[in-house]
Amino acid sequence: MALPDFTLSAGPVTVSERTRAALARPILYHYDPEFRAGFARTQSKVAEIFRTKNDIILMQGEAIVGLEGALRSLITPGMHVLNLVQGVFGKGTGYWIKDFGAELHEIEVAYDDAVSPAQVEEYLDAHPEIEMVCLVASETPSGTVTDVAAIGPMCRDRGILTYIDTVSGVLGMPWETDEWGLDLCVAGAQKCLGGPAGVAMISVSARAWEKIYANPAAPRDSYLSLLDWKEKWLGEGRFPYTPSVTDMYGLESALDQALEEGVDAVVARHRSAAEVTRAGARAMGLELWAVRDEIASACVTSIRVPEGLDNAVVRDHARAVYGVMLSHGQGAGNLVRLSHMGPTAGGLHSIVGLAALGRTFADLGAPVDIGSGLDAALDVLSAQNA
Amino acid sequence: MALPDFTLSAGPVTVSERTRAALARPILYHYDPEFRAGFARTQSKVAEIFRTKNDIILMQGEAIVGLEGALRSLITPGMHVLNLVQGVFGKGTGYWIKDFGAELHEIEVAYDDAVSPAQVEEYLDAHPEIEMVCLVASETPSGTVTDVAAIGPMCRDRGILTYIDTVSGVLGMPWETDEWGLDLCVAGAQKCLGGPAGVAMISVSARAWEKIYANPAAPRDSYLSLLDWKEKWLGEGRFPYTPSVTDMYGLESALDQALEEGVDAVVARHRSAAEVTRAGARAMGLELWAVRDEIASACVTSIRVPEGLDNAVVRDHARAVYGVMLSHGQGAGNLVRLSHMGPTAGGLHSIVGLAALGRTFADLGAPVDIGSGLDAALDVLSAQNA
Amino acid sequence: MALPDFTLSAGPVTVSERTRAALARPILYHYDPEFRAGFARTQSKVAEIFRTKNDIILMQGEAIVGLEGALRSLITPGMHVLNLVQGVFGKGTGYWIKDFGAELHEIEVAYDDAVSPAQVEEYLDAHPEIEMVCLVASETPSGTVTDVAAIGPMCRDRGILTYIDTVSGVLGMPWETDEWGLDLCVAGAQKCLGGPAGVAMISVSARAWEKIYANPAAPRDSYLSLLDWKEKWLGEGRFPYTPSVTDMYGLESALDQALEEGVDAVVARHRSAAEVTRAGARAMGLELWAVRDEIASACVTSIRVPEGLDNAVVRDHARAVYGVMLSHGQGAGNLVRLSHMGPTAGGLHSIVGLAALGRTFADLGAPVDIGSGLDAALDVLSAQNA
Amino acid sequence: MALPDFTLSAGPVTVSERTRAALARPILYHYDPEFRAGFARTQSKVAEIFRTKNDIILMQGEAIVGLEGALRSLITPGMHVLNLVQGVFGKGTGYWIKDFGAELHEIEVAYDDAVSPAQVEEYLDAHPEIEMVCLVASETPSGTVTDVAAIGPMCRDRGILTYIDTVSGVLGMPWETDEWGLDLCVAGAQKCLGGPAGVAMISVSARAWEKIYANPAAPRDSYLSLLDWKEKWLGEGRFPYTPSVTDMYGLESALDQALEEGVDAVVARHRSAAEVTRAGARAMGLELWAVRDEIASACVTSIRVPEGLDNAVVRDHARAVYGVMLSHGQGAGNLVRLSHMGPTAGGLHSIVGLAALGRTFADLGAPVDIGSGLDAALDVLSAQNA
Repeated sequence: MALPDFTLSAGPVTVSERTRAALARPILYHYDPEFRAGFARTQSKVAEIFRTKNDIILMQGEAIVGLEGALRSLITPGMHVLNLVQGVFGKGTGYWIKDFGAELHEIEVAYDDAVSPAQVEEYLDAHPEIEMVCLVASETPSGTVTDVAAIGPMCRDRGILTYIDTVSGVLGMPWETDEWGLDLCVAGAQKCLGGPAGVAMISVSARAWEKIYANPAAPRDSYLSLLDWKEKWLGEGRFPYTPSVTDMYGLESALDQALEEGVDAVVARHRSAAEVTRAGARAMGLELWAVRDEIASACVTSIRVPEGLDNAVVRDHARAVYGVMLSHGQGAGNLVRLSHMGPTAGGLHSIVGLAALGRTFADLGAPVDIGSGLDAALDVLSAQNA
Repeated sequence: MALPDFTLSAGPVTVSERTRAALARPILYHYDPEFRAGFARTQSKVAEIFRTKNDIILMQGEAIVGLEGALRSLITPGMHVLNLVQGVFGKGTGYWIKDFGAELHEIEVAYDDAVSPAQVEEYLDAHPEIEMVCLVASETPSGTVTDVAAIGPMCRDRGILTYIDTVSGVLGMPWETDEWGLDLCVAGAQKCLGGPAGVAMISVSARAWEKIYANPAAPRDSYLSLLDWKEKWLGEGRFPYTPSVTDMYGLESALDQALEEGVDAVVARHRSAAEVTRAGARAMGLELWAVRDEIASACVTSIRVPEGLDNAVVRDHARAVYGVMLSHGQGAGNLVRLSHMGPTAGGLHSIVGLAALGRTFADLGAPVDIGSGLDAALDVLSAQNA
Repeated sequence: MALPDFTLSAGPVTVSERTRAALARPILYHYDPEFRAGFARTQSKVAEIFRTKNDIILMQGEAIVGLEGALRSLITPGMHVLNLVQGVFGKGTGYWIKDFGAELHEIEVAYDDAVSPAQVEEYLDAHPEIEMVCLVASETPSGTVTDVAAIGPMCRDRGILTYIDTVSGVLGMPWETDEWGLDLCVAGAQKCLGGPAGVAMISVSARAWEKIYANPAAPRDSYLSLLDWKEKWLGEGRFPYTPSVTDMYGLESALDQALEEGVDAVVARHRSAAEVTRAGARAMGLELWAVRDEIASACVTSIRVPEGLDNAVVRDHARAVYGVMLSHGQGAGNLVRLSHMGPTAGGLHSIVGLAALGRTFADLGAPVDIGSGLDAALDVLSAQNA
Repeated sequence: MALPDFTLSAGPVTVSERTRAALARPILYHYDPEFRAGFARTQSKVAEIFRTKNDIILMQGEAIVGLEGALRSLITPGMHVLNLVQGVFGKGTGYWIKDFGAELHEIEVAYDDAVSPAQVEEYLDAHPEIEMVCLVASETPSGTVTDVAAIGPMCRDRGILTYIDTVSGVLGMPWETDEWGLDLCVAGAQKCLGGPAGVAMISVSARAWEKIYANPAAPRDSYLSLLDWKEKWLGEGRFPYTPSVTDMYGLESALDQALEEGVDAVVARHRSAAEVTRAGARAMGLELWAVRDEIASACVTSIRVPEGLDNAVVRDHARAVYGVMLSHGQGAGNLVRLSHMGPTAGGLHSIVGLAALGRTFADLGAPVDIGSGLDAALDVLSAQNA
C-alpha cells in the first residue's frame, strides 16, 4: 500500500521538515560534550513549555514510561488517591493505582463528558483522607479536556499532591505548571509539540520529590526509576542508561520551533484549528462527540460515526481512497478523530481532514453535506485571518 | 565546542547515511497499515540476524529496558540462578537477580579475563539446583567476550534456561540462537548493527515463554512487560503502547544493510577491524586490556591507559585536538576504548582511532611509537585485502 | 514570512520524500566509479520515460540550457524553420530562431488555443522549403497542449526535422519519442517527473546528430554544446564539465519512482487530477483559460482571474492567508494556475488548491460558490476511485 | 562497488551534514517570497566571502558556465588580451580568447610553476595595447597558485581589466576583490566553500559592466548571459530562467557556515591542512609536484606518481582497497592529488589521505616510508594545535 498523502493522526503526528532534519543528524556518543550540553539545554526548553522551575526528567520511551514510573514513585501502599475518570486513559490510571497498592477513589463520568471542579471539590470536602489527585488533562482518545486550571490550585491549596497525565495537554491547551501548583506532570513529545515518539517529559515539584524519596516502593536501579535520573543525571552528570540520541535531536528541534512561535501562539493555533474543524463537521451534518464545546479538546475533534457505519471501515476507506490517515477512539466509543495536532494544526489541514472524512461517509452511504461543511470551515478560517 | 569529525564510540555508534535517511522519513501513525507491515517485517529481519525461529519482541527504549523486563519476567522468588561475572554489566545483572528475589550464584573473574566453559560446567555439576544461567556475551565496557557457543548448548542439554545479554554481541561475534539453544537474548540496535539507540531486540524461546507465563511476578500492564507485547501485539495486532516510529525506520534500514552484506560478512568485518587495531596498538607499544586475544571483543579494543595518565584527560584531548570521540571503560578500569563497531568497523577507521589515540598519548607525555603502530596496522589491513 | 504549507506551483514542483532523501546523499567525486555508473543508469532511465532508443544527453542547468543548446546546434543560417506559437514559450522560440540566423515561418494562434495538425499540414504543403518544425508540446504558462502525436509523424514522413520543447510534456501527456519519430526533445526534471530543477534531459535522433555534425555553427567547447557531451562523455567517458552530483541523485530517484509507478500510470494520474480540478473550478463558477478541454494541459489548470482582480494580489493572498503557493501565467494573460504536477498530481491536493483559490476569490470580493466547487471535485475524485 | 568511506577529491568535495540537510529541504517555487528573499540573502553572503561591494551574479550550472558567460561578455573582436598560463585551465582560457575573436598574448610556464608578477609587469610595460589580463588564481588540476594580490592591483593601476578564474581560489587563499581591484571573478561552490556543484558565483565591477554594456557581442537572451541576470533579476526581480532551488539552499547553508567560522579562519584552515599534508608526503619520501612551497595550493597537494606507476591504477587501488577517493591531474601530468578542501581541510582527514596513498604506493611496489610520513604529519598537526 502506498504511503498516505496526509497523516492527521492523534499521535505520533506529522512532524515538521525541520524536526525531521534534526532526526537525521549524525548520531553522537551520549558522553560527547556536545550531546551532554544539548541534553541539558533540552531540559530547560521543556521547562519553558511547561512553565515551571521544577526539575525536568526526560525518560527514553513513549510517554507511558513516564506515567508508570512516576505513579510507581508516588504511590505508597494504603495511600488514598482520588482518580478522575472521563475516558480510557483515566480508567487505566485507576487500574494502576489499585495494582500499586493504594486505596482508589474515583469520580467517573461518561466518556463524552468531563469531571467538573465542583465534583472534585465536593469529593475532597467529604474525603479528607485523600492525599493525591490523579487526572488526565486531555483525553486524546475521545477528545475531551479536564479543567486543570481550577482543579490544580484547589489541590495545592489543600496540600494534596497532583499527578497529571498531560500527554496531549501541554501546548494543546493553556498550561501553567507552577502557577497552578501541579506536582507531577507527564507529557509526550509526539503530540501537540510535533516531536518524535520516544521521549517522556516529566516535571517534578520539590514536594513530589520529598514524597518519592520517602517512598520505599519508589523504583530504583530500574528503567522506570525517576530517582535514578534525579541522582545520576541531575546529580552527577551520568546517564542511568543510554538515551536515544536521535529522539533528543528531534525533541530539541521541536521545542525550538515551539518557543520561536511562542507557547501562547501554539496553543491559540490549536484552538483555531479546532474551531474550523468543528464548524465544518457541524455544517456537514455530523455529530460531535464531546457533549459541549467547552470540554472539547483543541487537538483532536472526535466525531460520532453515523449509525450503521463501522469506524474501522471509515478510516480504511479514507486512507485507501483519499490518502488520509485518521485515528480511531482507542476503545472510547464509535468515533473517528480529525486531529489537528502539532504541525497539522492550522491552515488547510482541517479542510483536508474534513474533505476526506465527509466524502468517505458519502461513499459509504451516510447522508452528509460536504460542500456546506467545507464552506463553513473555510468561512471560519477566513474570519480568523481577517 | 565543534562537533567531532569522527565518532568511534562503543555505542551509540556512527550510523550509515542510509540509516540516517531512514530516520528522517515522515512519521506515520503507528496504526497506519504501512507502519504495521513494517513493524512485522522488522521483527522477521531481527530473527534473521539472531538466527532463530523464536518470537521476536521489539521494546521501545535502550536495550536495558529489555534486559530488565526479561529478567523480571523470568525470575521467580527463591529460584537458583548462576550469574557469570567478568565485567560491570555482569556484575549489575547479579544485583538485579538478588533484588528480584532469586538465590544468586556467581562465578566471577577479573574484568580483563573471561569465565570459561569449564568453570561453568564444574559449577553446574556441583549445583544441580541451578535453573537458569545469566551471562553477558560481550562486556562492552572492557572489551571481552564469553564463550556462548560452548556454554549455551551445555545449559540447553541440562534443561537450564539461559538469559543472555548480547547487547553488543549479535553481529559482533558469530551468533546462533537456535543452534546453541539460547532461551532469552537481548540485543541493542545502536551497537554492531549500526542502528538507533531506541529499541531493544529480544528473542524468546517457547521454553522461556512457558516459564514467564508460569511466573506470577512477570510484569503485566507495564512498560517492562514482555507478556503485553506477546499478547497484544503478537496476539491481537494492537500495540501495548506507541512505538517510536522513527527508531523503527532506522532499525529496519540498518537490518536491511546487514542482511544485504550478509550476517557472516558483518561478523568478519568486525573481526578484521579488531585485528588491525590490535596490531597497531601493540606496535605502538601500548598494552591491550584483555589478557589474551581469544577473549578480546571484535567490536571494541580496550587499551590500558599508560601509568600517570587519566583516561578522561586522554579522551578529552583526542576529542578537542583531533576531533575523535572515544569511549571510556564505564567503571571497568583505567582503560580507553578504540571502537570499531557498526559502520566504523573496517577500512581506515581504525587508522583514524589509532592516530588520534597515539598522538594524544604522545602529546600528554607517554612514550609511544606512532609511526610503527600505524605502519603495522596498515600492514595488516593491506594483507587482509590482498 | 513562514514557509508555505503547500506548494502547488507549475515548477519547480514539490518533490517526494524519497527524492529529497536522494538529494541529501553524500556528494561523490564525479569520477567516482559509483557516480559514473549512476550517471549512465540515469541516462537509460530517461530513455525509458522518453520511450526512445536515441542518445540521451543530460546537461546541467534548467531545461532552457538544453533548449538553447539544442536549437543552436540544429540551426544553420538561412535554413527555413516553421515555428508553432500558442503561448509565451513558443513565441520565445521564434525569437531565437531568427537570432540564430534562420528564416522564420510561424503559425500563431491565441494563447488560450492550440495550433492544429491541419494547420501544420496545410502550411507544410504550401512551403516545401521547411526543413524543421519547432513546437512546444505543453505551454506551461497557459496550460495548453499541442497535438504532437499527429504533428510528429507528419514531419517525420516528410523528412522534416522536429525540435520539441516538452519541458512539462513528458509524463504529463502520452509521449512516444520513437513511435512519433521525434528528432530532438528537451524535458525538464522539475515538472511532471517531480525531480530537481538542475538538469535538462535531451533525446537526440541519429538524423539530428547528422544535422548537428554538419552544422559549423553548432556550439563546441561551450557550456551550450551537445557535441561536447556526445564526444567526450558518450564517446570517451569524460565529463565536459563537472555535473551537479546532487541533482543527478535527485533525478535518478525521481525516475525510479516514475518507472516503478509505470509511465502510463503517471500520465493517467496527471489526467485524473486535471479532471478533478476542472470539475471543481467550473462548479465554483470560475472560467477555465483553455478554450476547450481537449487542449487543456493535464499538469496545470489555468483559470481566468475574475474581472477587477489582479492575479498577483490573488496569489499573494492565497500564499499569505491559506499557506498555498500558486503560479501565475508568466505573461500569458490574467490567469492563475492550479498545478497538479509531479507528486501533487492526485488525491486531495486538487482540493487544497481549489479551497485556497476559491476562498481567496471570495475574500477579495469575487462571486464564487466554494462549497459546490469542492463538492463537485470530490464527486469526480470519488468516481475515479470507485 | 561500495561507496567510498572518504571522498578527498578536488571537487565536488565532501560537504558538511548541515549543507546536506539544506539540500534536502522542501523545494519551493522560485517565485515564493521565501525563496526570493533567500536568493537575495545568498548574493550578499557571496559578496562577503569575495570581500566586495560589486554586483554578485549567481548563474545556475558548474562554475564553467560563469567563466564562459563572463569571458564572452567581456571580449570584443580584436581586443588585446594577456593570458597567464601555468596549467590546463589557463591554457583553456587562451583557446576561448582566440575563439571569441580577441588578439591573444600569453605568458606560459611549466605546469608545476607559476607566472610571476615581475613577468606580467615586464609584459605589460612592453605591450601597452593590452586591455585585459586573464588568469587562473588556483590551478586545481596541478595544485599551484598565482599571485593575484600583486597582479590584480598592478592591472587596476594601469586601467587594465582583470578576468579571474578563482574557482578554487576563494576561501582557499586570501581573497580581496575590492582591495585588489579585481573586475570579474568567478568561483565555484563545490570547492573550498564545501557547497553543491551547481552554482557559479560571479562578481562584476562597475568598470566590467561598462565594458559589457558596450560590447555588442555580449550574450543576451541566452543561458550564458550575465546581462540577462543584471537586467531581469537585479533590475526587475524576475529570474531569466528557473534557478536550481536545491543548489541555492546548499549554497546559502555553506556560506553561513563559512561566515560563522570566519573567512580568515577558513583560509587558515586550508593552509594548515596543506602544511600537514606536505610534511607527511615529504617524510614518506614522496615528491611534491609544485616546484616550491610558495606556489603550492592550500586546497590540494599534488604529488608526483613514482616512476613506473600509473596514476589511474593508483587511484583505483586507493578507492577499492582503502575506500578513499582521490583525484587525478586532469591532464596536468602524472600526479595524484591529496585534497584538503572544504570540510575535509583539517583534522585527521590529511592522515586518512596520506595513509591511503602511502599504503597504495607500497602495495604497488613503490618505496615509501609510511610510518615516518604519518608520524611527521601528526607532528605538524600536533604543533598547530599546541
